[in-house]
Amino acid sequence: MTRVHIWGAAGYAAAEAVRYLHEHPELTPGALESRSHAGQALGEHFPGLRCTPYRFDEPGAVLDAVRPGEIVIAAGSHGQAWQIVPDLLERGARVVDLSADYRFDDTAAYGLTEYHRETVANASLVANPGCYPTATLLATLPLRNAGTIVQIVVDAKSGITGAGRNPSVGALFAEVAGDIRAYGLQGHRHQPEIERLFGMHRVAAPLAFTPHVVPLARGMLVDVYAIFASAVDASAVEAAYARAYAGSPFVRIVDGTSAPSVAAVARTNDAEIRFDVMGNVVRAICAIDNLGKGAAGQAIQNINTMLGFPEETGLVHRCAVA
Amino acid sequence: MTRVHIWGAAGYAAAEAVRYLHEHPELTPGALESRSHAGQALGEHFPGLRCTPYRFDEPGAVLDAVRPGEIVIAAGSHGQAWQIVPDLLERGARVVDLSADYRFDDTAAYGLTEYHRETVANASLVANPGCYPTATLLATLPLRNAGTIVQIVVDAKSGITGAGRNPSVGALFAEVAGDIRAYGLQGHRHQPEIERLFGMHRVAAPLAFTPHVVPLARGMLVDVYAIFASAVDASAVEAAYARAYAGSPFVRIVDGTSAPSVAAVARTNDAEIRFDVMGNVVRAICAIDNLGKGAAGQAIQNINTMLGFPEETGLVHRCAVA
Amino acid sequence: MTRVHIWGAAGYAAAEAVRYLHEHPELTPGALESRSHAGQALGEHFPGLRCTPYRFDEPGAVLDAVRPGEIVIAAGSHGQAWQIVPDLLERGARVVDLSADYRFDDTAAYGLTEYHRETVANASLVANPGCYPTATLLATLPLRNAGTIVQIVVDAKSGITGAGRNPSVGALFAEVAGDIRAYGLQGHRHQPEIERLFGMHRVAAPLAFTPHVVPLARGMLVDVYAIFASAVDASAVEAAYARAYAGSPFVRIVDGTSAPSVAAVARTNDAEIRFDVMGNVVRAICAIDNLGKGAAGQAIQNINTMLGFPEETGLVHRCAVA
Amino acid sequence: MTRVHIWGAAGYAAAEAVRYLHEHPELTPGALESRSHAGQALGEHFPGLRCTPYRFDEPGAVLDAVRPGEIVIAAGSHGQAWQIVPDLLERGARVVDLSADYRFDDTAAYGLTEYHRETVANASLVANPGCYPTATLLATLPLRNAGTIVQIVVDAKSGITGAGRNPSVGALFAEVAGDIRAYGLQGHRHQPEIERLFGMHRVAAPLAFTPHVVPLARGMLVDVYAIFASAVDASAVEAAYARAYAGSPFVRIVDGTSAPSVAAVARTNDAEIRFDVMGNVVRAICAIDNLGKGAAGQAIQNINTMLGFPEETGLVHRCAVA
Repeated sequence: MTRVHIWGAAGYAAAEAVRYLHEHPELTPGALESRSHAGQALGEHFPGLRCTPYRFDEPGAVLDAVRPGEIVIAAGSHGQAWQIVPDLLERGARVVDLSADYRFDDTAAYGLTEYHRETVANASLVANPGCYPTATLLATLPLRNAGTIVQIVVDAKSGITGAGRNPSVGALFAEVAGDIRAYGLQGHRHQPEIERLFGMHRVAAPLAFTPHVVPLARGMLVDVYAIFASAVDASAVEAAYARAYAGSPFVRIVDGTSAPSVAAVARTNDAEIRFDVMGNVVRAICAIDNLGKGAAGQAIQNINTMLGFPEETGLVHRCAVA
Repeated sequence: MTRVHIWGAAGYAAAEAVRYLHEHPELTPGALESRSHAGQALGEHFPGLRCTPYRFDEPGAVLDAVRPGEIVIAAGSHGQAWQIVPDLLERGARVVDLSADYRFDDTAAYGLTEYHRETVANASLVANPGCYPTATLLATLPLRNAGTIVQIVVDAKSGITGAGRNPSVGALFAEVAGDIRAYGLQGHRHQPEIERLFGMHRVAAPLAFTPHVVPLARGMLVDVYAIFASAVDASAVEAAYARAYAGSPFVRIVDGTSAPSVAAVARTNDAEIRFDVMGNVVRAICAIDNLGKGAAGQAIQNINTMLGFPEETGLVHRCAVA
Repeated sequence: MTRVHIWGAAGYAAAEAVRYLHEHPELTPGALESRSHAGQALGEHFPGLRCTPYRFDEPGAVLDAVRPGEIVIAAGSHGQAWQIVPDLLERGARVVDLSADYRFDDTAAYGLTEYHRETVANASLVANPGCYPTATLLATLPLRNAGTIVQIVVDAKSGITGAGRNPSVGALFAEVAGDIRAYGLQGHRHQPEIERLFGMHRVAAPLAFTPHVVPLARGMLVDVYAIFASAVDASAVEAAYARAYAGSPFVRIVDGTSAPSVAAVARTNDAEIRFDVMGNVVRAICAIDNLGKGAAGQAIQNINTMLGFPEETGLVHRCAVA
Repeated sequence: MTRVHIWGAAGYAAAEAVRYLHEHPELTPGALESRSHAGQALGEHFPGLRCTPYRFDEPGAVLDAVRPGEIVIAAGSHGQAWQIVPDLLERGARVVDLSADYRFDDTAAYGLTEYHRETVANASLVANPGCYPTATLLATLPLRNAGTIVQIVVDAKSGITGAGRNPSVGALFAEVAGDIRAYGLQGHRHQPEIERLFGMHRVAAPLAFTPHVVPLARGMLVDVYAIFASAVDASAVEAAYARAYAGSPFVRIVDGTSAPSVAAVARTNDAEIRFDVMGNVVRAICAIDNLGKGAAGQAIQNINTMLGFPEETGLVHRCAVA
């Protein structure tokens, strides 16, 4: 069993990581550091974790506990990982950072597992992708050789846990229930992250990205509209998606009368994708759980990859009825 | 038009009061004081008020603006009204306090309009009842002469706006959606308020009161179980409810296969009540909107009463389909 | 008072129309015909209408009751209005049809009031627009002279009442809560309706239209992405929106850090629009209530127009806090 | 691997049973019979089961497939099990019936596992308890020797999947969201079931039982108020609960500032219970998932018991964050 420590363990993604680690056959939770919750049971703060025995640890606990070759999930707010990651690496730990801090840093592997398996496998530091970039890139990248794209429109709908657990008026039940609203209309952090990866994978089109909050606790649906210079070859597109995800256990292509569904991927590390070729427009829709494939699930998938376990170890599909 | 000033105008109940005042034929909003939001448009904070022109005023605005005979709604947090109400009364204002501060004070009229019309009409200071007490008392008080009650059980379910708009983890969408939970299990502020009114109206039975949060933004359902020493006369009970609310335009008795419904009273000042006599147990269920009859609606009803307008002035029924 | 009869009165939009008519100063509900619910109180089926005295009428009631110059709202399912509208017109009634039956018929006025006031004013038969077309057209039509549009992408998110009240598995609470899903991926009835109106108003670009169901009872947000052949003049666009809605009391332009919000328009006839010019892409977002401006509210607005009343008669803004 | 066949596989509880069976180490799904869905993939009807390979089987499939010693879950509507169970038993199958058909039949074991382990272990036919009785009995039965109970009040709140998946207006999203309502006010099927078990376990008090629908897909909270003839010994009560559930892995007692939470047990077979002694009133609150411990989870627990596996086999705790 390899220990996985969590630095900044009080948020939704950290708790989701604990849920995965608790049942993982090769990994086990180590120090679970939280300045605000130190000493308290996880189950006091997360009713869904009452069935586990873990407690939050004191500040400094991760740095004290970590041994060479162990893993640390850095789950602090954006801008905090810089404070701790260099020290962790120096102690020989391998780090998966859930924040945006290292997503633009060439020394970190960008942890979109399906596209960067080898880099991740050898990395000391993995920058876990944002949830919007994860869904957007999974939907879009198979199109990179399908022709000249002149514009990409990304219309994204997210559950509110994407905003974290620090309480704000905008995340209150009474504000989220009964509403849908676009946000970040003058620019969102995830836009340059998507653009950077588009560049890395030679997708040259300009991007119009609009995130929305919908009345969901968790889950995300992203509609990508790729507008090509001319009509697209549908069978080539079909082959491209098939090829892109042939060896990827977590990506499920849906077609016919089915549509990607947040309910179908909630609480899993799965991604559902559907694409439709309509003349010179390709619409690709991707559903993920923002806390699963969009955060903690992908982190575990990356850790499995870093440690040489099969990707799906401890991430067995978990179906849900309603 | 009589001006109604609001002190502490940033919360849900205050905004709901503005909604009512905005369309009231005899009342109009005066100063809308909020330390935190001063200078900003109400519509910036409450999308539902974008169709109004009002702005939040600076600290001190209500005290500066108020004239003798005008009304002030004190909508601060519990414990704050004491700081301002004496000064307001001294300037000749009449005050409706939404907080708990004066609910145990004999100098204030207890503003459960249906039972205290005359006191309210003549009051300088009205303590607007809590939402739980409002629903509980409306359901229970008609039973006060129906026999000896040995125990009263009150099981109450409330939407989350009852917790106010100051952000807390427990009020986040991701915590409220998908859950129901009891709270205040070791004592809730509203229990003594209910007991005081029970005493005032000679209901002598001990009370077991349990509030719950359910996944609703607004609205409240309260089930009262009155356990009598012996079997109760159903027709006497029926007559008692009919008599109690004969002249009360906002109380609607439902029967047959119908049940009180939060959806039927949301965004109104209505209360729906159903009672069932089952041997020596009477179950009385009451639905109100916690922000309507449970707060701002009842405040307007009280102001109408204080100023000699018909109770329903500006509180016309507002139906809703879904 | 002019009577407004409703044919097919058992659905959500019909009930919403009753809600509006109940408080309208110039209109009053006439026959409310429903085969399935005949003889029963509206409040039995719609708790929100318990505060009204109306009952559903027998089949044939509208045809029997209607007098020349009176109004009929045809609120049956798509394909049913054809059975009744000719007879109603022959009796001298004026008809607003909520279904799709006459939306492609040149003998009917297309009731997007803001763009067809005069035609509506003089019409015997008004085809009330679909909810998706209403929001899409309000957002898009001001752009029709802003340059050459090469592609329009419409990503629409709707509450579930758009699917009507006939029970289906897909509309159950347990299926809608916790999910977002696209539908009609192989074609949706509203696409040709939008395209027809684009043609009528000389918007020549191809349309990619994708509707989604989100966990909302009512309300709709539509994101329009208009991709132009070259960069667009932002100040010309701003002027075009201002001009388009200068005399339209129900359209509210929002900007700055505000975004159109379903919560801001729910239970009203309002539409909120925001536009952003980003090089050669203009994003225009529109929020409406699918039962309000998207159905019953716009029907009342059209009836006001047909009868020569000010457009907003009986449709006073109704704010909501949460 | 023992095969578990499902008769009437199209409902929520059946699908939940498939979810459990899919990952169970000793059980595997056999025939999954559904008249309405025969031939179609489960994932077409339940997005959450898209990750499984199963299809619905034709009418007759279970009777054809079943072998002596195999298990059948009868998951039809109430009143249908009588048609099939005798034939199944005759073929040597052992049956767990999720319907109410055999809950009053002395030839069936009543499958409240925690109280009837031995009977269940030896049974050919297990009547799986209703969801309301499960939560009510788990909360109440430890009190059976705590003194003379004069009245029991049960106020129950359930998610809407308890109403099944046959579409009805009352289960539509637009009817359930934004509302709470009591139902069955003139009698509910579960009341006599609870009373029968009270009798079996010598709880003699009269019962007032009120079920409510709340805006939840799944999960249930039941508040039991036991009113005793005189004050109750708190430490005896505490000991009774501890004793009652000492060997029961799925029952978790919560205390202090914690309350049973539907979110803490959703998608699990867990039950959370809290009790408070208040003079002569004991309040015991129980949270379960109506599809888990209230239906399919308890069915698997019973099957484990019938086959001699540890109770929690394949029912490992599954935590959830939000």
